[in-house]
Amino acid sequence: VTEKYEELKSRLATIHDLRMARAILGWDQHTKMPPKAGPLRAEHLGTLDRFIHELFIDDEIGKLLEDARGYEESLDPDSDDACLIRVTRRDYEKASRVPPDLRAELTRSGAIALAAWVESREKSDFSIFLPYLKKNVELTHQYIDCFDGMGFDNAYDVLLDDFDEGLKTDAVRVVFDELKTGLVPLIAQIAEHTDRVDDSSLYGDFPTEKQRDFALVVLERLGFDHESWRLDPTVHPFAMSAGTTDIRLTTRYDEGNLGASLFASIHEFGHGYYEAGVDPALERTTLSSVTSMSLHESQSRMWENLIGRGLPCWRFFYPKLQEAFPAQFGDVELDTFYGAINKVQPSLIRVEADEATYNLHIILRFELEQEILSGELALDDLPEAWNARMADYLGIEVPDDARGVLQDVHWSGGAIGYFPTYALGNVISVQLWDQLRAELPQLDTQFEQGDFSEVGQWLRENLHRHGRKYNSSEMLDRIVGGPMDPAPYLRYLREKLGEIYGLPVETGAAV
Amino acid sequence: VTEKYEELKSRLATIHDLRMARAILGWDQHTKMPPKAGPLRAEHLGTLDRFIHELFIDDEIGKLLEDARGYEESLDPDSDDACLIRVTRRDYEKASRVPPDLRAELTRSGAIALAAWVESREKSDFSIFLPYLKKNVELTHQYIDCFDGMGFDNAYDVLLDDFDEGLKTDAVRVVFDELKTGLVPLIAQIAEHTDRVDDSSLYGDFPTEKQRDFALVVLERLGFDHESWRLDPTVHPFAMSAGTTDIRLTTRYDEGNLGASLFASIHEFGHGYYEAGVDPALERTTLSSVTSMSLHESQSRMWENLIGRGLPCWRFFYPKLQEAFPAQFGDVELDTFYGAINKVQPSLIRVEADEATYNLHIILRFELEQEILSGELALDDLPEAWNARMADYLGIEVPDDARGVLQDVHWSGGAIGYFPTYALGNVISVQLWDQLRAELPQLDTQFEQGDFSEVGQWLRENLHRHGRKYNSSEMLDRIVGGPMDPAPYLRYLREKLGEIYGLPVETGAAV
Repeated sequence: VTEKYEELKSRLATIHDLRMARAILGWDQHTKMPPKAGPLRAEHLGTLDRFIHELFIDDEIGKLLEDARGYEESLDPDSDDACLIRVTRRDYEKASRVPPDLRAELTRSGAIALAAWVESREKSDFSIFLPYLKKNVELTHQYIDCFDGMGFDNAYDVLLDDFDEGLKTDAVRVVFDELKTGLVPLIAQIAEHTDRVDDSSLYGDFPTEKQRDFALVVLERLGFDHESWRLDPTVHPFAMSAGTTDIRLTTRYDEGNLGASLFASIHEFGHGYYEAGVDPALERTTLSSVTSMSLHESQSRMWENLIGRGLPCWRFFYPKLQEAFPAQFGDVELDTFYGAINKVQPSLIRVEADEATYNLHIILRFELEQEILSGELALDDLPEAWNARMADYLGIEVPDDARGVLQDVHWSGGAIGYFPTYALGNVISVQLWDQLRAELPQLDTQFEQGDFSEVGQWLRENLHRHGRKYNSSEMLDRIVGGPMDPAPYLRYLREKLGEIYGLPVETGAAV
Repeated sequence: VTEKYEELKSRLATIHDLRMARAILGWDQHTKMPPKAGPLRAEHLGTLDRFIHELFIDDEIGKLLEDARGYEESLDPDSDDACLIRVTRRDYEKASRVPPDLRAELTRSGAIALAAWVESREKSDFSIFLPYLKKNVELTHQYIDCFDGMGFDNAYDVLLDDFDEGLKTDAVRVVFDELKTGLVPLIAQIAEHTDRVDDSSLYGDFPTEKQRDFALVVLERLGFDHESWRLDPTVHPFAMSAGTTDIRLTTRYDEGNLGASLFASIHEFGHGYYEAGVDPALERTTLSSVTSMSLHESQSRMWENLIGRGLPCWRFFYPKLQEAFPAQFGDVELDTFYGAINKVQPSLIRVEADEATYNLHIILRFELEQEILSGELALDDLPEAWNARMADYLGIEVPDDARGVLQDVHWSGGAIGYFPTYALGNVISVQLWDQLRAELPQLDTQFEQGDFSEVGQWLRENLHRHGRKYNSSEMLDRIVGGPMDPAPYLRYLREKLGEIYGLPVETGAAV
């Protein structure tokens, strides 16, 4: 058994190495690649993904996984080996249903669509992107069809499962309905008190280089280390890792708006810090990435919002910000700044949205994606549908497609079903936050002193080190002793925003 | 036949895609990778190279190549298909002798040694690099042993053949002896007239950012295009391409020395321009890279020296340089500057050496490499041997290993046998130069107007587009109608340097 298990691990290690190579190629494609290299890169990525896929769905891996059952049963189910076998088997069952040609075509098509999306967004012309999006959706349908008979309730569940194992559309809908019910009146209430927050200081003249310097002041305090991390500009911010010692954050700078890049950088730091914290013993195995995108987003949103838009950390960072941009912030009180970075106002761009309206951006995408998949909504009509729903949910008019339907990179890469994980990440982030604050009562004081080590250690110990050993519901249950629950998140928003906007305190069990 | 040939081409295209992915990973490793990621990157690269190797030496490729013999014989030997089959067969015969584990280990060991070399060089401490170099040399011996009975005259020939098919140590020695015989007296003669050249203007205060801006002014004129090219800083300059639309140059900046980075950038441009000029019809085949490193270096050295250190191009660029650095060059005449960039003076660093002494740096490495391989020179004694020969050939004392034996990246990656191609590139560059100048009499005038299009077209038409279709002696024969010959190069140097230093004109057939 041991010899065969070692053979399995060795095969998985080489597959992992190729996946990391692929990750670097993807990062390069978004940050460094000369634009005209796009079509060739699509071939390179398609070939690499096909090859990785073929190696993984090899019958021999299937046999080795079967042979490992006895060994697996002899182990503590929480042991690294037992988890590796279990998680790999699940991956294998899914992957072996997907033909290598389709795998390659999904990648190639996504890589080509990326260039079209960049151009389409630059020119704010949806028609450039449309044929590529159609191709991506067509391939997504072919991909979904691979899972006929595997017990998925509906097409969207197949996609959700790729980003968060076992996540169901119905469960997402229940959570999103609760969010809507809680958030719509809160946002309306705040709309009556907009004069209580002044965010004019966040808009002005912020040279890219100085923004980057200040972002690094913050990130280095949080745990960014130049020996193992990078920060680069890109069109759409993301984080990527090629191992715990190769963590790459990206951000985009708007010289007129400080918040856009700063909070995106902190958001991506949260992703990077998660991946940097995976137990090195899991390196070069199936378990060395992270467990689900919802948990991943819980980390990025926690650092961005619960820490990064909190008052304690700005007691430490604000004097440094004033020093970096004296003309902007020299005369602005910390409380005013704290209000500014938490201002609630319906706006166009998801990644720049405040904590309350953010979720409506996600719900809109979640609904549109389902309508696209069901065929209810034709892709030609997508911009109109987008704009109508923006008016409906957020009460704002979309001036152009660049700031509307073309704003996000996801669909260009064929990533349909990803968006819900952001809002679920919000929900989970507060569940984790409540737990860690109960265990670490000195956090605020530490943050005020620029010390983020204890929160980091807690997250590593309780979540990060496990990598993919547990799926998100197992993981959440281990940490908070229960399932996903939007109530703490809504309570957190009501309290924080209620205080900032001076809203009347609610009585009773409102949530 | 056609179907099987298509199968062969399709397999080669896949292998090519993976090689391009590997090229990007290598570029990233030298330019962007966080330092601590080195050990993991070594695994990723080792795995990728092993798979590429396994795919290529697959028996099925051997069979397909055999099956293609009939088709090959029916073709014009100059056709793309005939060349593809011929060149791939040669590659296959060599590669199939190398076990995949050794291939992976060569790569892994080289990647790990790179990090050790960087540290060793930074600290100027050869002992840090020594064990890694020993490992590389040991693996090189194992590699050489793979070719027993393949008809190589000696160990070094095996290595030369990887960089320049068919190149023999004896042939290199003959050329290098001629170079020595011609250059030593020339350098000695110049040493008596050092006061005729003043290069003080090249040393001063040149901020990196401004150096980069000016380098791009030059490179863009020569043919650098931001849609398909990049320029990045690195420890040791190199050029890399991942296809004709993804050309990446690197350079290193010395803020006290303008020439170091500028001429390295132009040198790497020469490499990049060669790779950018390969016929797109050869893309994703064995033929889409370039034919030999000697020809490759002929292009880099041509742009760096024959064009980039020539007077005509500086008639165009010098006013722009004066504008960029008025404090340095405002009062310096063009003739003085032209002398400065062509100053002959024995110096420590190969990549910064003048055209005459450069070759002695190479001859030194060529000799040391052979002594290392034969065991005549123990690696522990390498710094001493290096320093002794620098004193002997160039009359200068090496102050530390960073500026001595540790200056070049090549041995860290296991690239033994590469250095000779630089000096052969010098030799070939002038043979090509004489030919193209005979065909293009207006070049000087064009350069003076900043027009480099005709020389570029000539090089593309006669050399670049062919990719790997011909080896370097076939290629040279096609272009100049004869074999490698150092006489034109020596004549060129005597004329150019004789004029700059006001040396007495030689009479008779001195060369």
